[in-house]
Amino acid sequence: MKRAVVPGTFDPITEGHKDVIRRASQFFDEVIVAVARSEKKQPLFSHDERIELARKSVAEFPRVRVEGFSGLLVDFVADCKADVVVKGLRAITDFEYEFQMTALNYELDESVETLFFMSSPQHMYLSSSVVREIASYQGDVSKFVSPCVQEALDQRFRS
Amino acid sequence: MKRAVVPGTFDPITEGHKDVIRRASQFFDEVIVAVARSEKKQPLFSHDERIELARKSVAEFPRVRVEGFSGLLVDFVADCKADVVVKGLRAITDFEYEFQMTALNYELDESVETLFFMSSPQHMYLSSSVVREIASYQGDVSKFVSPCVQEALDQRFRS
Amino acid sequence: MKRAVVPGTFDPITEGHKDVIRRASQFFDEVIVAVARSEKKQPLFSHDERIELARKSVAEFPRVRVEGFSGLLVDFVADCKADVVVKGLRAITDFEYEFQMTALNYELDESVETLFFMSSPQHMYLSSSVVREIASYQGDVSKFVSPCVQEALDQRFRS
Amino acid sequence: MKRAVVPGTFDPITEGHKDVIRRASQFFDEVIVAVARSEKKQPLFSHDERIELARKSVAEFPRVRVEGFSGLLVDFVADCKADVVVKGLRAITDFEYEFQMTALNYELDESVETLFFMSSPQHMYLSSSVVREIASYQGDVSKFVSPCVQEALDQRFRS
Amino acid sequence: MKRAVVPGTFDPITEGHKDVIRRASQFFDEVIVAVARSEKKQPLFSHDERIELARKSVAEFPRVRVEGFSGLLVDFVADCKADVVVKGLRAITDFEYEFQMTALNYELDESVETLFFMSSPQHMYLSSSVVREIASYQGDVSKFVSPCVQEALDQRFRS
Amino acid sequence: MKRAVVPGTFDPITEGHKDVIRRASQFFDEVIVAVARSEKKQPLFSHDERIELARKSVAEFPRVRVEGFSGLLVDFVADCKADVVVKGLRAITDFEYEFQMTALNYELDESVETLFFMSSPQHMYLSSSVVREIASYQGDVSKFVSPCVQEALDQRFRS
Repeated sequence: MKRAVVPGTFDPITEGHKDVIRRASQFFDEVIVAVARSEKKQPLFSHDERIELARKSVAEFPRVRVEGFSGLLVDFVADCKADVVVKGLRAITDFEYEFQMTALNYELDESVETLFFMSSPQHMYLSSSVVREIASYQGDVSKFVSPCVQEALDQRFRS
Repeated sequence: MKRAVVPGTFDPITEGHKDVIRRASQFFDEVIVAVARSEKKQPLFSHDERIELARKSVAEFPRVRVEGFSGLLVDFVADCKADVVVKGLRAITDFEYEFQMTALNYELDESVETLFFMSSPQHMYLSSSVVREIASYQGDVSKFVSPCVQEALDQRFRS
Repeated sequence: MKRAVVPGTFDPITEGHKDVIRRASQFFDEVIVAVARSEKKQPLFSHDERIELARKSVAEFPRVRVEGFSGLLVDFVADCKADVVVKGLRAITDFEYEFQMTALNYELDESVETLFFMSSPQHMYLSSSVVREIASYQGDVSKFVSPCVQEALDQRFRS
Repeated sequence: MKRAVVPGTFDPITEGHKDVIRRASQFFDEVIVAVARSEKKQPLFSHDERIELARKSVAEFPRVRVEGFSGLLVDFVADCKADVVVKGLRAITDFEYEFQMTALNYELDESVETLFFMSSPQHMYLSSSVVREIASYQGDVSKFVSPCVQEALDQRFRS
Repeated sequence: MKRAVVPGTFDPITEGHKDVIRRASQFFDEVIVAVARSEKKQPLFSHDERIELARKSVAEFPRVRVEGFSGLLVDFVADCKADVVVKGLRAITDFEYEFQMTALNYELDESVETLFFMSSPQHMYLSSSVVREIASYQGDVSKFVSPCVQEALDQRFRS
Repeated sequence: MKRAVVPGTFDPITEGHKDVIRRASQFFDEVIVAVARSEKKQPLFSHDERIELARKSVAEFPRVRVEGFSGLLVDFVADCKADVVVKGLRAITDFEYEFQMTALNYELDESVETLFFMSSPQHMYLSSSVVREIASYQGDVSKFVSPCVQEALDQRFRS
């Protein structure tokens, strides 16, 4: 059995994240969406909220579960007895950052393997920060996130 | 008649911005310099100050006017009945970011077209943040900004 | 009146090229598609064939005409009394190359301005070389080129 | 059962290729190393030689077999009833090219999924062309290729 | 006599920094490690702490001394009567940023020359921020920093 | 005494190359311009011609001499008892390629150190291939190369 971890801050989870998670679920027996605490980034949604929104957004995918974590990713991967980290790649900046993180994780724990999916063309522009910005101006984000996330964003920015 | 919008935070407006605005003004009947509120970036100058400095800096260019905006760029472009967004491109990081924004704006409103000018070689290194940093150390920024901006920076960092 | 030149080898012209030409035609009074001789690249189609295929492919666009040229682009632009060069940007490598060419042309003739359109997301992967490769394996290129180009490719690779 | 295809020209197969193939073999039930004919690249070794060298080099890996192919990758993947294409990523230029190819293959056949492994740090600089160049100057390539490949290179460049 | 300045925030100094400093010390008669105050970055360690940790970490290198500075780098270089700035290059993002800074410094003072060393492959992933993050999760950073820095990080994150 | 090697194909030597060589000559006791045979690139000028043009172009620089080489750069550097390879960096593609070559040379011979100068802004667009192309169209290359190179190009392309 092969178990994959898809880590991120998910502030909030987008259709781009969901696409990567769905594709990962076709290659692995179990996929764990790992929501990092990431307090330093001062996320819009609390750790619990981000976990909850991720859970609802991927409820439809079989073999996928959502968990929160804090600390080093390699430790979480070891704790889960996972075989691989799965990431989506969008653009050059992503690539550089992910390369650095992959090499670092390899240095910290050689047994952690990382696999990448290229973002689908229609999600190339999509990121949580872009979604937060559009929502903050009452723009329509229904194409970019699950209905439950759209609702949470509406509540957060309504005033 | 073709109307172009040149958006940005302009904190403060630089000779690089002015170069792009001037070149845009040769291809369009009207150019609107759109100063974003961008409160989240915690700008050095207030929205009103940035608008005022931009206004004085481009006063010499015919067919150019400066306006402030908040909210989504695509909404501002529609409100202005503008035909196109014009941006300057400096470097790889710019390119990635601008590509993302262009694709996003296209997703939000297909009728918004974006055109790019490559930065002039002598402005390749120039950015508002670089100007703010030099000014904060009492360095000479006269080559990089209009005299009115230089004066405003001097006042801000004098003490 | 503003006149734009869209230069390239067009070996052969693709839907990506046509998209840039069409968008340019909305901002300029006249658009000249300039097919470079580019003998050194050992093109699949002759200069005359490439001009002819481009002509048929853009016949539907008003205010667009196709011309062949050899020699320096800046000289062709001056001969045409054009105001601006228009290019499509697809990816990082494009960006680097186009930046170099733009800076070079500026050095050769300061009066030549260059404007860029970002490729539409659906054309990000599309290039003449990709089309030639697919066609050489009898793959279906109908989504990527005009019917007349598809026919020319079929003839070239049929055996 | 999941079957992966690792495509390439393999002119010749390097330790970098072998690293990607070995890592892929840990995640899939079967890995097919697909050696493209690639005549246009005028390879140093013939198609048959490249297949043979790849076969010997990966003989030690269970669940891995080597096959030649010509034509479109998506057709080969379909013929093999494979589930996924696996590629190694080394550097920015790789990333751009692979992104373009992935998007193109997706356009040609939506059912073809592509997964990427980041190159191991020690293989970041390694490519078939670098190996050919060193060998052509009688340099030592024993760290970069299997003994059988080293021997084949020695014979090719001995004179 | 040739004198080089190796500038940075050094929050804290890493084995990657030390590698660049050591290599620079082989080409110059004197190397000054210049620790920028960088208050705006809200560093983890105070300016005095960063200077002290750098001093201890490079104590073993002959012809190297550590100094703090605030203000513009070009002014510090002139004050030191140094001949050249030396930087390490890790990745694309580095390259872009360093190119911008080099061009800017050249604009501010033409006499300031900048030289670059490519990071050693084993330090490609290493940065002060990565070290701070690992240490904040009680991860092992002994491979990445000097013992004195490891101790300082332990104290800072112990609780 | 420190001795540097500046390697390249120099087909032909440009003002950009000369700028790097001149700057290198200010930091090293001796600079050897190493003209690679590079037959595979099918250069415009013969090895002897490229050596001769480089020699005339850098005659004015003290402490600089020109030599031809074939084979591996690391072997040439060792034969010369040189301490360092010096390269100019222009753009992203350069950076990637140079990083790969630097890492490879380090793998082949750990004692070979490589230093980089960033291209001067006015030479960012300049390359031998660009010079050859302009000259092939009888364009004016006097700003880009020494008079002797200009003459050689004129003779080559006159007909």
